[in-house]
Amino acid sequence: MNQSKVTTHQILIEGLRQTFSGRLLTDAPDMAAYLIDWRKRYQGQALAVVEPINTEEVANIVRFCAKHAINIIPQGGNTSLSGGSVPNPTGKNIVIGLKRLNQIREIDAQNNTMTVEAGCILEAIQIAAKEVNRLFPLSLASQGSCTIGGNLATNAGGVQVLRYGNTRELCLGLEVVTAEGNIWHGLRGLRKDNTGYNLKDLFIGSEGTLGIITAAVLKLFPLPAFKQLAWVAVQSTTHALQLLTLSKQHTGDSLTAFELISDNCLNLVLKHFKQCHSPLKSPSPWYILLEVSENRPEESHKLYLYGVLCDMLKIALETHLILDAVVSDNEQQFKRLWTLRESISAAQTMEGANIKHDIALPISKIPAFIEKTEQAIRTNFPNAHLITFGHLGDGNLHYNVYHSKNSRDNCIPHQASINRIVHDAVDSLNGSISAEHGLGVLRRDEAARYKSPIELNLMLDIKQALDPHNRMNPNKVLLKK
Amino acid sequence: MNQSKVTTHQILIEGLRQTFSGRLLTDAPDMAAYLIDWRKRYQGQALAVVEPINTEEVANIVRFCAKHAINIIPQGGNTSLSGGSVPNPTGKNIVIGLKRLNQIREIDAQNNTMTVEAGCILEAIQIAAKEVNRLFPLSLASQGSCTIGGNLATNAGGVQVLRYGNTRELCLGLEVVTAEGNIWHGLRGLRKDNTGYNLKDLFIGSEGTLGIITAAVLKLFPLPAFKQLAWVAVQSTTHALQLLTLSKQHTGDSLTAFELISDNCLNLVLKHFKQCHSPLKSPSPWYILLEVSENRPEESHKLYLYGVLCDMLKIALETHLILDAVVSDNEQQFKRLWTLRESISAAQTMEGANIKHDIALPISKIPAFIEKTEQAIRTNFPNAHLITFGHLGDGNLHYNVYHSKNSRDNCIPHQASINRIVHDAVDSLNGSISAEHGLGVLRRDEAARYKSPIELNLMLDIKQALDPHNRMNPNKVLLKK
Repeated sequence: MNQSKVTTHQILIEGLRQTFSGRLLTDAPDMAAYLIDWRKRYQGQALAVVEPINTEEVANIVRFCAKHAINIIPQGGNTSLSGGSVPNPTGKNIVIGLKRLNQIREIDAQNNTMTVEAGCILEAIQIAAKEVNRLFPLSLASQGSCTIGGNLATNAGGVQVLRYGNTRELCLGLEVVTAEGNIWHGLRGLRKDNTGYNLKDLFIGSEGTLGIITAAVLKLFPLPAFKQLAWVAVQSTTHALQLLTLSKQHTGDSLTAFELISDNCLNLVLKHFKQCHSPLKSPSPWYILLEVSENRPEESHKLYLYGVLCDMLKIALETHLILDAVVSDNEQQFKRLWTLRESISAAQTMEGANIKHDIALPISKIPAFIEKTEQAIRTNFPNAHLITFGHLGDGNLHYNVYHSKNSRDNCIPHQASINRIVHDAVDSLNGSISAEHGLGVLRRDEAARYKSPIELNLMLDIKQALDPHNRMNPNKVLLKK
Repeated sequence: MNQSKVTTHQILIEGLRQTFSGRLLTDAPDMAAYLIDWRKRYQGQALAVVEPINTEEVANIVRFCAKHAINIIPQGGNTSLSGGSVPNPTGKNIVIGLKRLNQIREIDAQNNTMTVEAGCILEAIQIAAKEVNRLFPLSLASQGSCTIGGNLATNAGGVQVLRYGNTRELCLGLEVVTAEGNIWHGLRGLRKDNTGYNLKDLFIGSEGTLGIITAAVLKLFPLPAFKQLAWVAVQSTTHALQLLTLSKQHTGDSLTAFELISDNCLNLVLKHFKQCHSPLKSPSPWYILLEVSENRPEESHKLYLYGVLCDMLKIALETHLILDAVVSDNEQQFKRLWTLRESISAAQTMEGANIKHDIALPISKIPAFIEKTEQAIRTNFPNAHLITFGHLGDGNLHYNVYHSKNSRDNCIPHQASINRIVHDAVDSLNGSISAEHGLGVLRRDEAARYKSPIELNLMLDIKQALDPHNRMNPNKVLLKK
């Protein structure tokens, strides 16, 4: 881009200043936080950051950008783990910051829906649902700063997918500003609607490359009255899967979490968080954190669910499916057990750099994946260690690789080779190289490597149809021909 | 179309006869059943009916049709209620009958998935799932003859949506032959996969207008060990909705059905089926049929669920939410109660012609809809009667209008006016004019009437992108510009 063109754009953008008084940022220090991603891997440039306060303003900016051939980067909480929410370094971009679109427009407790704007912080939505005695079940590490617009754009997952589904399953309707700057009013709160193509689910997960989600109708659920938790030791992931099947049979939809944790994960947590203790006397190669919940507040239901959980574990012990187990019998122990799971990410960071993978597999293929991949990594990188944990109930593993601090063979420089080993194994088992973090720029080319030309062409055809000038979050998700 | 061109096509089609020996139908009597819809409203014409036995053959025929500019009508069990699966009368069509693509390719009980071909009969899939102790929950009146390909093409609903979702929610992956005759291999059995645009959910519900679904990965669930049923009398639909909220709170996901039945529906069933009896002593304006199910086979769990149901109904009686209730305490009574619900369609046919609507509303808006619409219909057609029943738990009503046989004011000729009253009321409450039957040709123009130009254009853009020559089930769902 030449200097004179930048100047022309800058003059045009100055024309917006009155309308967006105090909400048009053009100075470098003001824009800085919008131009770099959460993990500080992607530094971009922009002509301006604009913060509209309603959908009409979003549409106006999009039309402005369309008219003047400026690229648009929609941004919510800027917590993407794949570099999906920051502009590229060319500078011919406007970031549309959506955080001021943060109204909860309606809560319909009888329809079990709430209508929220894209910039609402996830945690604020959870709280608003709780105030009407309902649950909005989406729950993520970044819930204090991520926005529902970003959750929808990336079809975010989290810890309760097993019971409630991904963000896509939690959304009934959308309002979207198209690449032309039109507003699609699709805010329907319906459980059934077969009147044409499913535009909602096309925009969800498209990471802002087809249009800008400005509002959504979300599903609500009865608020659980209490939860119970078991920490279970198993010999292998094969046993873990058999326990999953048994749990589904016994606890049905009460099952809200089924998390896999390797012994190495637990050891890292115990090493870096001295206040943590192992829940069981003897170590085991693998652990499962299993949560059940119950809607009814009466003590009798609580005791019943506790009985169901204990009966199931008794059967599992008697049939040698599990090695040992402990069930939380108070709130404090419940928190202590979840803390072990939630501290893994921090513990691995304290241990040093690691190479992350966010993968999904058919659940039945997980033991084969773990065996095959561990062998391949150990053969090539004898000093590498694995941090294997994740949402086993959804087939989603966080499969990270690191090396001992004292080891001479640092594996970090071999990230590309390790990615290749892991992703090749995932692909050979018909899995996904991005289970819940999206593609952004981080996984874009990796996804293109594994997708068939036919699938890529279908995606490109849709991109061409809905954003023919490649203005909407360009070069995220896929590179246009 | 002129005669010589037909001849050219016929000669070309003869070239297929050797490949599709016994599976290429061109004689009128052989083709007859493929050319008229289930309700005998739409009579079409075709050059031929072809019945491929595998996906490659489907792709070959699609390429043949693309080359020779012949339209393609994919057809499964031909049970569409909206005329979606038959060709138009122009004759320049080939019907691709998919019933011979009927292999169950794989069952993975541990992953809770099965991979089936599009031509599998729904009931055969249910049976195959049961054989591995799993439930495939899609359940419809036509399950003995409809195919899963058709269920997916129309995103079919049925009686267990409240608990398990529509067909879309029951499918994890697809194999599709595109309009160009390429095969998209998207048969992934994953609960999480965020690697690009959601092609699966775009093809599902597109009624064969974007491509031909040839196989799918379906979700399986634990098989319920037993079910319990209550027939409940309520004064109004407002009370019915309060009972729905109470039921969700008490029975949680055990709740598998919540069906609304008006007193008039029950009376029609009692009139035409003399072996049926009213379950309660006194009549009531409305009834609810409420089913709960339980996975665990032990007697103790059965008794517990029975207790939960009875406790909930006791609270509802004490708070005057319901007027009366009976709970099935044996298999025979269970069947008798469901028979009342299932006989409504037959009873209304025996009573005479009626005008059908398959609508969905935000659940909270149903009382307002019923009051408003009944008033409008009675004002305009004083002798009209209403048959109101449906899946209240999903907000889906079958809202049918008829007149007494002895009445002079036959309302059937006023179908268009009555459709307008009902659909205007649905639209004003942000509902859907086709909840579970799709658009086909029957509701195509009606949907276009209520959709915004922006939504229609998004749909047309997608159609243009994936089927630029309008070959795939042309003029179903939407009319191309």
